[in-house]
Amino acid sequence: MNDFIFQSPTRFVFGRGYTDRIGAEVAATGARKALVLYGGGSVERTGTLARVTASLDAAGVAHVEQGGIRPNPEVNQVRAAIETARSENADVILAVGGGSVIDAAKATAFGVPYDGDVWDFFAGTAAIEACLPIACVLTIPAAGSEGSGSCVISNDELNLKRGVNGDIFRPAVSVLDPELTFTLPPYQTAAGITDMIAHICERYFSGVGPVPVSDNICTGLIRAVMPAGTRAIEEPADYDARATIMWTSTLAHSDIAGCGRSLSPAARAGGWESHGLEHEISAHSPAVTHGAGLAVIMPAWMRYVWREDPARFLSFAKDVFDIEPVDDTEEAVADAVEATIDELQNYFASLGMPKTLDAFGAVPADVDAWIGTLEQNKGAEFGAFRRLTMDDARAIYLSAFA
Amino acid sequence: MNDFIFQSPTRFVFGRGYTDRIGAEVAATGARKALVLYGGGSVERTGTLARVTASLDAAGVAHVEQGGIRPNPEVNQVRAAIETARSENADVILAVGGGSVIDAAKATAFGVPYDGDVWDFFAGTAAIEACLPIACVLTIPAAGSEGSGSCVISNDELNLKRGVNGDIFRPAVSVLDPELTFTLPPYQTAAGITDMIAHICERYFSGVGPVPVSDNICTGLIRAVMPAGTRAIEEPADYDARATIMWTSTLAHSDIAGCGRSLSPAARAGGWESHGLEHEISAHSPAVTHGAGLAVIMPAWMRYVWREDPARFLSFAKDVFDIEPVDDTEEAVADAVEATIDELQNYFASLGMPKTLDAFGAVPADVDAWIGTLEQNKGAEFGAFRRLTMDDARAIYLSAFA
Repeated sequence: MNDFIFQSPTRFVFGRGYTDRIGAEVAATGARKALVLYGGGSVERTGTLARVTASLDAAGVAHVEQGGIRPNPEVNQVRAAIETARSENADVILAVGGGSVIDAAKATAFGVPYDGDVWDFFAGTAAIEACLPIACVLTIPAAGSEGSGSCVISNDELNLKRGVNGDIFRPAVSVLDPELTFTLPPYQTAAGITDMIAHICERYFSGVGPVPVSDNICTGLIRAVMPAGTRAIEEPADYDARATIMWTSTLAHSDIAGCGRSLSPAARAGGWESHGLEHEISAHSPAVTHGAGLAVIMPAWMRYVWREDPARFLSFAKDVFDIEPVDDTEEAVADAVEATIDELQNYFASLGMPKTLDAFGAVPADVDAWIGTLEQNKGAEFGAFRRLTMDDARAIYLSAFA
Repeated sequence: MNDFIFQSPTRFVFGRGYTDRIGAEVAATGARKALVLYGGGSVERTGTLARVTASLDAAGVAHVEQGGIRPNPEVNQVRAAIETARSENADVILAVGGGSVIDAAKATAFGVPYDGDVWDFFAGTAAIEACLPIACVLTIPAAGSEGSGSCVISNDELNLKRGVNGDIFRPAVSVLDPELTFTLPPYQTAAGITDMIAHICERYFSGVGPVPVSDNICTGLIRAVMPAGTRAIEEPADYDARATIMWTSTLAHSDIAGCGRSLSPAARAGGWESHGLEHEISAHSPAVTHGAGLAVIMPAWMRYVWREDPARFLSFAKDVFDIEPVDDTEEAVADAVEATIDELQNYFASLGMPKTLDAFGAVPADVDAWIGTLEQNKGAEFGAFRRLTMDDARAIYLSAFA
């Protein structure tokens, strides 16, 4: 087991109808005025935003709202939110939404106390040293941002999508109310489940040998969420299925699944190859849902790299799908691993996710642009399970077309 | 999935040789003077205490020491530590030891800012509203106190052993250095593993139906720690085995294994029947190691109650031991469950734990006294998986003699 530092200070307040508790929870942190960020109109249409502001009112927490945070949130939206938070003297940033809104809230929260431009943190030219408290009402279980120390922001001008990591901007409190997700469309539900499974797989296939405690958490989470995902697509108001999905999304990205698998104690476990590859696709085509991109790219990455450590894939095969090679020949191992990747990809497809990049309207000629920004973001090589050159990345992208 | 609130703010600093980091970690919390609590002379003999104080010195944190905290720590030791902390103006309580020392540190930390007597909290006549920060260097993985919101203190005068729960006294930082446990004697190693498995089972057998995420975490932790325990007894300096045991001890009692299994969001999951029954034994005979008592009592409790919910025990049987009934007759189910409890009890025995209460020099005539204080602590009935009367408790105690 490798050395690690793990901290997950967020207070998770999980249950039916708990949306109405957000005001009391925010007040308990000592905050007096919230900047409430949200995305499209769905939280207005469903009444969630009204419940949140009523709850803030009841708890005596003043508030100002900013909507329109888009999927793959853009740095100019964050800059605007920072201005609002400053001019309104907000002392907490409250996200009502999914990972995109929460990530925008995080960037706003560490942007407010910083004198320079918030993109500096994503460009790597400044370190985050202060941050307003962040609160969340989660509406889309997927990114795990409600408990994670991750924040990903896009910059349209530079055609970049960049992430930062740090414990300082983990949310202070996250209200997790599975009932809010009853109205989540099937495609978003499926993309979210794919994203959380990918968060687990990035840690599981980290280039570090077995870590039994973390490995069993990884495979146990995946075994729990898979049937819940199937049920939620069939019966959108199945509370237990929605609750299982929501709690998995949080744990999948809280780092609890990666303890002991980091290459350095300060770093997250894993090389985040699939996320790195996918980020370029949705950075260039913001209409691509991150989870849907992962449903295509992660199996392609797996097929390209598994020979680097077949034993790791066989552990996954056994513990997630109960697949074992018929004997220990190279052919039997390959059959078992390929069957496992097929099972995973077919599961994503059974939820409605695409299997190839063609589904996004992408064509092989797009790959050059993706490689261009991938190299800007990652350098000439990246990855932990197996180091990937830009030629490897190109081969993986191209293998994901029909 | 039932509603829950989960918070685990402790910063876990886990790795080889990390004992020497405690000074920097304590300094990072802003503390200036530590009251260092420890138990017997083992941390002096092994040099651990000297490493800790040297690390504090290097980080510029002043310190004062109080040793002699006994297993099943006594309230008078806590009262003395509170006096020392006050007179020395300590602003952090640093435990160097196992669960007993950490629990004494917690009680000291919430006793210092309280005007009355610290036992009031355990008597239930006062609520904990303030607490000094707590830091730990863990030397005995067992109780999970390094991350938990639990604190158990004995009162010899009253012949009571009582616990309190609360997030306010979870440690701020815990240094987890598996190398410190290489010298832990086999009996203590085994008792610790038994205790952590019991912490998981108390949550798993909570009287609440399946909660897939938490259930898989529970059974995954047990599957991870069992072979590690066997290896650590055979090869005390096996780092990965010791690391697996240490991290399991923390997660087993951090509440992550019980999310969604609480009967009320404010309460811990489970009825803590085995712990309740065992506490009376070690309250009356402080020489009984808590984990060894659990190795005897928990299987006896399981045999007495499993018919209340055979399906729950069959899930455990399948997911921990891969045991399934040959068919669905009552007899086959009973055989599978009894075989599962046998496997668990035999595992504890394989580590060197006793199978009956006779091993502690106890005799059936002792049971009256245990029932007497059990009723004082629990009332006429207790438990969540199945409500237990004092007659049930007596029957369980008596069944645990040879």
